[in-house]
Amino acid sequence: MKGYTKKHAQAGIKAKLPRIDCFPSQYKNYEIVISVPEFTSICPKTQLPDFGVITIRYVPNKLCLELKSLKFYLLAFRNLGIFYENAVNRILDDAAGACRPKWLEVHGEFSPRGGIKTQVLARYPRPEPKYFNS
Amino acid sequence: MKGYTKKHAQAGIKAKLPRIDCFPSQYKNYEIVISVPEFTSICPKTQLPDFGVITIRYVPNKLCLELKSLKFYLLAFRNLGIFYENAVNRILDDAAGACRPKWLEVHGEFSPRGGIKTQVLARYPRPEPKYFNS
Amino acid sequence: MKGYTKKHAQAGIKAKLPRIDCFPSQYKNYEIVISVPEFTSICPKTQLPDFGVITIRYVPNKLCLELKSLKFYLLAFRNLGIFYENAVNRILDDAAGACRPKWLEVHGEFSPRGGIKTQVLARYPRPEPKYFNS
Amino acid sequence: MKGYTKKHAQAGIKAKLPRIDCFPSQYKNYEIVISVPEFTSICPKTQLPDFGVITIRYVPNKLCLELKSLKFYLLAFRNLGIFYENAVNRILDDAAGACRPKWLEVHGEFSPRGGIKTQVLARYPRPEPKYFNS
Amino acid sequence: MKGYTKKHAQAGIKAKLPRIDCFPSQYKNYEIVISVPEFTSICPKTQLPDFGVITIRYVPNKLCLELKSLKFYLLAFRNLGIFYENAVNRILDDAAGACRPKWLEVHGEFSPRGGIKTQVLARYPRPEPKYFNS
Amino acid sequence: MKGYTKKHAQAGIKAKLPRIDCFPSQYKNYEIVISVPEFTSICPKTQLPDFGVITIRYVPNKLCLELKSLKFYLLAFRNLGIFYENAVNRILDDAAGACRPKWLEVHGEFSPRGGIKTQVLARYPRPEPKYFNS
Amino acid sequence: MKGYTKKHAQAGIKAKLPRIDCFPSQYKNYEIVISVPEFTSICPKTQLPDFGVITIRYVPNKLCLELKSLKFYLLAFRNLGIFYENAVNRILDDAAGACRPKWLEVHGEFSPRGGIKTQVLARYPRPEPKYFNS
Amino acid sequence: MKGYTKKHAQAGIKAKLPRIDCFPSQYKNYEIVISVPEFTSICPKTQLPDFGVITIRYVPNKLCLELKSLKFYLLAFRNLGIFYENAVNRILDDAAGACRPKWLEVHGEFSPRGGIKTQVLARYPRPEPKYFNS
Amino acid sequence: MKGYTKKHAQAGIKAKLPRIDCFPSQYKNYEIVISVPEFTSICPKTQLPDFGVITIRYVPNKLCLELKSLKFYLLAFRNLGIFYENAVNRILDDAAGACRPKWLEVHGEFSPRGGIKTQVLARYPRPEPKYFNS
Amino acid sequence: MKGYTKKHAQAGIKAKLPRIDCFPSQYKNYEIVISVPEFTSICPKTQLPDFGVITIRYVPNKLCLELKSLKFYLLAFRNLGIFYENAVNRILDDAAGACRPKWLEVHGEFSPRGGIKTQVLARYPRPEPKYFNS
Repeated sequence: MKGYTKKHAQAGIKAKLPRIDCFPSQYKNYEIVISVPEFTSICPKTQLPDFGVITIRYVPNKLCLELKSLKFYLLAFRNLGIFYENAVNRILDDAAGACRPKWLEVHGEFSPRGGIKTQVLARYPRPEPKYFNS
Repeated sequence: MKGYTKKHAQAGIKAKLPRIDCFPSQYKNYEIVISVPEFTSICPKTQLPDFGVITIRYVPNKLCLELKSLKFYLLAFRNLGIFYENAVNRILDDAAGACRPKWLEVHGEFSPRGGIKTQVLARYPRPEPKYFNS
Repeated sequence: MKGYTKKHAQAGIKAKLPRIDCFPSQYKNYEIVISVPEFTSICPKTQLPDFGVITIRYVPNKLCLELKSLKFYLLAFRNLGIFYENAVNRILDDAAGACRPKWLEVHGEFSPRGGIKTQVLARYPRPEPKYFNS
Repeated sequence: MKGYTKKHAQAGIKAKLPRIDCFPSQYKNYEIVISVPEFTSICPKTQLPDFGVITIRYVPNKLCLELKSLKFYLLAFRNLGIFYENAVNRILDDAAGACRPKWLEVHGEFSPRGGIKTQVLARYPRPEPKYFNS
Repeated sequence: MKGYTKKHAQAGIKAKLPRIDCFPSQYKNYEIVISVPEFTSICPKTQLPDFGVITIRYVPNKLCLELKSLKFYLLAFRNLGIFYENAVNRILDDAAGACRPKWLEVHGEFSPRGGIKTQVLARYPRPEPKYFNS
Repeated sequence: MKGYTKKHAQAGIKAKLPRIDCFPSQYKNYEIVISVPEFTSICPKTQLPDFGVITIRYVPNKLCLELKSLKFYLLAFRNLGIFYENAVNRILDDAAGACRPKWLEVHGEFSPRGGIKTQVLARYPRPEPKYFNS
Repeated sequence: MKGYTKKHAQAGIKAKLPRIDCFPSQYKNYEIVISVPEFTSICPKTQLPDFGVITIRYVPNKLCLELKSLKFYLLAFRNLGIFYENAVNRILDDAAGACRPKWLEVHGEFSPRGGIKTQVLARYPRPEPKYFNS
Repeated sequence: MKGYTKKHAQAGIKAKLPRIDCFPSQYKNYEIVISVPEFTSICPKTQLPDFGVITIRYVPNKLCLELKSLKFYLLAFRNLGIFYENAVNRILDDAAGACRPKWLEVHGEFSPRGGIKTQVLARYPRPEPKYFNS
Repeated sequence: MKGYTKKHAQAGIKAKLPRIDCFPSQYKNYEIVISVPEFTSICPKTQLPDFGVITIRYVPNKLCLELKSLKFYLLAFRNLGIFYENAVNRILDDAAGACRPKWLEVHGEFSPRGGIKTQVLARYPRPEPKYFNS
Repeated sequence: MKGYTKKHAQAGIKAKLPRIDCFPSQYKNYEIVISVPEFTSICPKTQLPDFGVITIRYVPNKLCLELKSLKFYLLAFRNLGIFYENAVNRILDDAAGACRPKWLEVHGEFSPRGGIKTQVLARYPRPEPKYFNS
């Protein structure tokens, strides 16, 4: 495949990013949805900025994601070269790693590029794909 | 975690609030949805006001929530320092405690702060989280 | 509970209303949805008018609801004192009693009062509430 | 019931209509949705025109509905006296009879009359009504 | 059926098209949605252009669809005579053939022609049609 | 013109209605817009209810319209037989008569009847119609 | 120009149509807007139906358009062959001829045909076209 | 007028509020629009909260309104008893007094109370009302 | 300027295109709006397709634009290399040249490219630009 | 004013930015609108990113703005500390300086911060503010 190197494919996956803090949940078994419409990162191939809406949905176990540290964590993608798919999956791993939730999902909806719009949805724990989960 | 003390985390959870009255339901096994788009409270950390839409959905058992007392109960959050998550969970406990419903859920959708928008959903009786209930 | 008497709670439940006519269905096992955005009744406590959208959804058995008589039945609430919850439940009983459907549901979505908006949903035959039917 | 005769109730059910042609499907087990926002027929009671949106959704077996002949079939309702319920059910029978699909459904959403809006949904093969299929 | 020949019915199904490239996925069991609102092809019967929105949704196995080559693949329909149903099914076969996903679906929503709007939905692996999968 | 008598044409124009109160304005030369989406009256010909949205826009002179008395004034149309055109024009005369504004306009947008929707716009002081004021 | 004869161009312009009745206006110098979203006529070239929304806006002089007769007048286009431009202009002449208004305009917004959507706007008295009246 | 005293009418007009700061504009003759969807105050008659959207539009002269001090100024209405009309007019006077703009307008759009929604628009310098400025 | 040659700048301006036919208008001084949401052409620099919505608004003099020939004229841009600005201006010249209208304007609204969306508006007769015509 | 220094107020106004290229216009006296929904810069006070939609509208004289260079010019604000008002005014000066248009305006609509949303509109040549240009 022309112009798509392994370096591009893995760009940003292991970059150092700020830590996501947590605080102890005061209640049990409820759901939280966090939407961040101002996410932006850099395409590792073209060096041009990408834009998107990141939505995190989860049921906390003992810890909740602290919003201010989450904000600084997401701001750190601003000048990071990383593909859409990797950004969403990395946020999943980092957010779930920080708060150890009962479940958590990350959805990214990105601005069109070349007339093509992309969304990515990842879940923790990573499910076996149900046959046509609509 | 900087600046996020236990005092903040538990602010408002035990504050005294007006009582929610009920009246006897005349029918059985039907569903009621109550939406309050003008909910406002105070952030315990910044002392700045938060705004949100609270929606209560339930199947009454013998009692229905009386709307006027519910309104005064919710108005009492206006000058109360309490986080989003705690506000929704406390309303759940207080509303379910008042009317002893077959089931009841409280959903809060709050105005963006720092480019981040939050929703919280809690249910009575508190369910074991289904794996990806969409 | 102040100002909420038994007389209010049961107002309109047994009031005499026009009969809902039916006609024989020509087909089997299909679904009909009837929306009436111009429903209005009177609050028994304040004597002020309430407004709402009533939606009836059903699978006919042998009979269909005749629309003209249904219209005159619903118009009769215009000057009737009755609470939201009771109006929806009574329409359920009267419509199901008239056409003996396989199933039927009535949904009422009412205009905000004092910043609070209410919906009521009732079903025939009256179901045991499923745990979180979304 | 006043003014609602058997002649009205069955009007148009057996009227001769143009044939719906089909063509052989080139693939298997996929779904097709056809929307016709310009459907119009005549009310058999008032002789006034009715308007609606007809949507046909199906999984073809060996044959697909040919759009041009379907269009002329639907155009033939323009001056036909037939009730909403019967129009939708007849289209179901005629479309399913023509293409023998794995399944097929017809939905009609009609313009308000006298402040009342009606929808009709019919399915082939005709299902036993599930208890509250939402 | 007049004017609808086998040549039309199979037009474009075997036409040579650019190859869809893939790249190795860095994560497992997540979902990708790709929307292309600028799809256009030619009607084999009238030679007039058709327009539509193509949406591809899939769970990658080891490979992801590379967007640039997918774009050139879809651009190649611009002057290709092919019916809606065949275009969607062919894209399904070509995309699934390229990336061997866990599952993949293609949805096409096409501009109205003669007052009729069409959608087509195809899935890999091709499912036995569930009875009324809504 | 059949069935349209002078009695109908003038119905409600001179009916006694509650008085609209005013209060002294504290500022000068500003504009107020009042929207009442729950207006309802009776058609003098069919005796069936009409529904509409009434909007009053004005620049106060010395007096402002008091909202509570305005509400009871508009509620009094609920069982009054009066045509759309006359209702809007009468509200104009009554509101302008009460508060003597610099200018005032009343707009009514009414629910469709028989597939026809009507709006009426009247202004005080009554202007000579500009040639195509858009 | 191929296939566009003088007979087509003038079709329907002089066809006999039902009379539009009027009634005496009770007030002066106000504006009325009448919207008819269910207008349909026949294309004189293809004999296929056209659909559109007709909006009439006017300031009455001594007479108002009576809605029921206007409805039957517009219904008479249902099986009349007439082009969009001519339909709108004829309605202008007939409506203005009936009620002799201070001014009157007719706007028609028609359903797309062959990917092209058309609107027509005509005014009485017919204005000299202003240079770019936006 | 019952229950509407002079004390109510003037409530909040002279209350002490935080100062609105300004900063020197770096450019000339451009327009700024500031929208605050989270404005809330107290009704002086019922002591219940009001909610609204405040929009300030202006052309700066030498000074621009500083947003942070403007925010604290508007927050101070949270527990202030003041009518809609007075709130908007006072904000006009205070904002114009602070930045001495070429012109400035304040628009308030408030939540419905008792089925009635109110907007207020005030301008500096206070204009003579144009006859029907639309 | 890199990569932007005179050949690109003038591409398509003089290409031979199908003729736009006209027919005699039957009425005077009315306005016609024609919207074509399926316009597509080729970027002369990248050879990639562009998409847009073309809207033509005019007051006919003696002739109206015939829709079928206009459609084939616009279809001819499908494989023509031409910039947005030139496409709109050329359509203006060709349409005005064909029907000699009292006035005519062409508006093009094009799909985003590289995160930038473009509109072009041209008028006949070409006006001296008014100072801020909004 | 606390925390708002002259350094902040003038940040970014004189920063070196990429040049905006132009190309010769092929037509006269038409209007171009360019929308860039992905504008982002840095707040000089908080160092946090701002987001906005920039729209440029102009009538070219002899030169048009070349989109690719305009894009790189706007991308350069990504890591530039500059206030909203200054960003819009600087874009005005730079774009007008590059293409010397008949007129040009720049509008910026920025994401809410602290519950406050800001828009800025600047025009070339800089107009004397009309008294209430709506």
